[in-house]
Amino acid sequence: MSTWTRKDLTGIEPLSREELEIIFERAEFYHSELHEHKRYDALANRTVVNLFLENSTRTRTAFEVSARRLGADVISISGSASSLSKGETLRDTAMNIRALNADTIIIRHSAAGAAAYLAGVLDIPVINAGDGAHEHPTQALLDAFTMRLHLGRDLRGKKITILGDILFSRVARSNIHCLTKLGAEVTLAGPSTLAPHKFAEAFPGVRVVHDLRTALAEADAVMLLRIQHERQTTTHFPSLGEYTGRFGLNRERLSWLKPGAIVMHPGPINRGVEVESEIADGPRSVILEQVSNGIAVRSAVLELCNKAVQAAKA
Amino acid sequence: MSTWTRKDLTGIEPLSREELEIIFERAEFYHSELHEHKRYDALANRTVVNLFLENSTRTRTAFEVSARRLGADVISISGSASSLSKGETLRDTAMNIRALNADTIIIRHSAAGAAAYLAGVLDIPVINAGDGAHEHPTQALLDAFTMRLHLGRDLRGKKITILGDILFSRVARSNIHCLTKLGAEVTLAGPSTLAPHKFAEAFPGVRVVHDLRTALAEADAVMLLRIQHERQTTTHFPSLGEYTGRFGLNRERLSWLKPGAIVMHPGPINRGVEVESEIADGPRSVILEQVSNGIAVRSAVLELCNKAVQAAKA
Amino acid sequence: MSTWTRKDLTGIEPLSREELEIIFERAEFYHSELHEHKRYDALANRTVVNLFLENSTRTRTAFEVSARRLGADVISISGSASSLSKGETLRDTAMNIRALNADTIIIRHSAAGAAAYLAGVLDIPVINAGDGAHEHPTQALLDAFTMRLHLGRDLRGKKITILGDILFSRVARSNIHCLTKLGAEVTLAGPSTLAPHKFAEAFPGVRVVHDLRTALAEADAVMLLRIQHERQTTTHFPSLGEYTGRFGLNRERLSWLKPGAIVMHPGPINRGVEVESEIADGPRSVILEQVSNGIAVRSAVLELCNKAVQAAKA
Repeated sequence: MSTWTRKDLTGIEPLSREELEIIFERAEFYHSELHEHKRYDALANRTVVNLFLENSTRTRTAFEVSARRLGADVISISGSASSLSKGETLRDTAMNIRALNADTIIIRHSAAGAAAYLAGVLDIPVINAGDGAHEHPTQALLDAFTMRLHLGRDLRGKKITILGDILFSRVARSNIHCLTKLGAEVTLAGPSTLAPHKFAEAFPGVRVVHDLRTALAEADAVMLLRIQHERQTTTHFPSLGEYTGRFGLNRERLSWLKPGAIVMHPGPINRGVEVESEIADGPRSVILEQVSNGIAVRSAVLELCNKAVQAAKA
Repeated sequence: MSTWTRKDLTGIEPLSREELEIIFERAEFYHSELHEHKRYDALANRTVVNLFLENSTRTRTAFEVSARRLGADVISISGSASSLSKGETLRDTAMNIRALNADTIIIRHSAAGAAAYLAGVLDIPVINAGDGAHEHPTQALLDAFTMRLHLGRDLRGKKITILGDILFSRVARSNIHCLTKLGAEVTLAGPSTLAPHKFAEAFPGVRVVHDLRTALAEADAVMLLRIQHERQTTTHFPSLGEYTGRFGLNRERLSWLKPGAIVMHPGPINRGVEVESEIADGPRSVILEQVSNGIAVRSAVLELCNKAVQAAKA
Repeated sequence: MSTWTRKDLTGIEPLSREELEIIFERAEFYHSELHEHKRYDALANRTVVNLFLENSTRTRTAFEVSARRLGADVISISGSASSLSKGETLRDTAMNIRALNADTIIIRHSAAGAAAYLAGVLDIPVINAGDGAHEHPTQALLDAFTMRLHLGRDLRGKKITILGDILFSRVARSNIHCLTKLGAEVTLAGPSTLAPHKFAEAFPGVRVVHDLRTALAEADAVMLLRIQHERQTTTHFPSLGEYTGRFGLNRERLSWLKPGAIVMHPGPINRGVEVESEIADGPRSVILEQVSNGIAVRSAVLELCNKAVQAAKA
């Protein structure tokens, strides 16, 4: 079996299928002890800095929980309340954090490529927690990990439908990379303004469908994306109500799915918009499992990247 | 002796006198070692989440200090800087935090009943750190604990005067519940707009007095409440100056108290409004002791609720 | 050798040369193990509160990293997001934090003298992290520590030029005190509005120079100060461009320095204003070393002040 040698996780696109499997294997270990109140020493005496220059609570907290379980100290730096960013370049901010003895930087940034840029500058692991509309790799990892638990470890030939705002979604992009590498068949669905055909051209083997029944008919999993109604409503579809009317997952449409198909959502949910409450809380929903699985995959990623740095030094 | 079986502390109202005594007994242990720089393992490897959806530093910090002393990791999530609350229900926010492996949630929320609602939803301890004008149970516990230290463990027949903005105060409500359960005689005092007679009807055995000398004459302890002058001034009394003129505790009025009576305040103090500086800093003031005692009672509550959950599982 | 007996670090001005040397000696120990992922127990089971009532990320994080390395729990309280400061005096805020079992308070405040005031009120170490335009002692300590590493432990007779906004700079004031106590020869340089002659009168042995070539000619180290262009531009010099044109450090002016002279900056850098990028990143720059050395000196200060308190009790 091959080993993990990457210092960073900047996206799913650069990873091989083998590398994905290494992460999943290690995540399985952490998943098996998720509720045992264990602490580990993979990052003992290490300092992890959460550098979140876009608002986030969910992902920031998930990384903080994961890093602390591994024994690390965690320091959070947020963009808004910070004086670091005052006239300072991102590179200088990161170099300063490094100079303060940080051992890992987890970064969320509005600019695509921010994490990859820092990864090239710094000698410590840089983990991408979302960069613009580019990638959100740990979200895709926890999504695929959740699918593996429900659909079987081998996702080849599994049919996954991603439904909603594909165009602006880094979650969709990372999932497309991840799922196609794992051999799944990906269907992108939504209004044509949010699920444009150019995605099918850009990603071979991915199809774009604007008819919901077709999109759901054969799916083993349907992944709903959050409609960010505070932003894109007016330009990309007439109204929230019309989105929900055509693409919201309700009881009738749920019946179009195969038995055993699961319903996923990266959160936070707009209940009554992308999905009816009874479905979000129903037996097919694995939404909260996704959240918990995020600790397992993030623990795996933090451990693997840190071990790779230590191995490279030794 | 009975044992503690509650998973949550959502208010004082649901507690029995015996349950209050269990908390105080355990708090006495933590109080006895308060200045010894000890750490405990009651919450070792546990994660406590401070979910403060209203501003707070004092209470949040007190819970953080208490939880860390017990060995827990503490993660703070505040409403304003958070993306969690964006269109997400409180239940979903809490379920997500639970899914991130939180073992206890401490919640402050502007809505009465928020903590009790979450307690019913979650399988982990939920501690109310203030819900609207409803309850602030750990404040009442630390207040009663402080009285016990000064007036004796048995508060039956002790006369306690609560002075100030009763109407809007969750501190007053929790204290009324706590003190009457413990057998103390409670007097509510203040201008009739802030200390209305309906409180005497709602709480049997509680009297409402609008004459300050009467209110202070027999008191063993007088608990001043903060006048929240940023909000209620214009509607409930003519001006801050008039409030102070009639109800502020000054040297002359202090002399109306019995020898040995103590002066309390939940903080933060408006010096020169509710109380003259020389009294706040004087020999009868136990205001800073109250703050320290808050660590003892919060440690007790965190330990008891967590042990109850563990016992229920075993 | 004399020993450290101070409870607090409120400024450099009160310190003797011997006390500075004690700090440097202890900082050398921490510096020698800076990259070894060690944890110490000097502050084990202690709680350090970062009370930052002015915005800061860099200094706050540096203190947090340092205190955690020593085994302390660190709690951050910031002014803006805090309810502590609502109508509460600084003394009450600090007394409350003390009552919450804090063992050390690190304070940044806009008022000169804030740290010294609290030091007189509290029985625990108070460390000044910047008080108005008065002092920022740990910055001066890390600056001098960095010079000692590059120019030799004995700074007597070394020529240090501080260039830029002297007038409003607490960094400059603390450095002037520190460097003159250590026997260095200090030159203050900049436009006459920012480097007024009154400094030469106030600090014997310090000279003020408005000609950059003269200021740089003999320097062993040049310390650039940040031009806080969000504030003082219009009043103290015509434009940023003119400041850079006359006083910005560029390649030509760098050649005026002696071989071996080092370039320093407390950060955050305005690239292209005080200094050209190629110089900030060049071989003479020790800017990032300064940041790392800050952990060593802050660890030393935290340890010394806490040990002094413990010794005084014993």
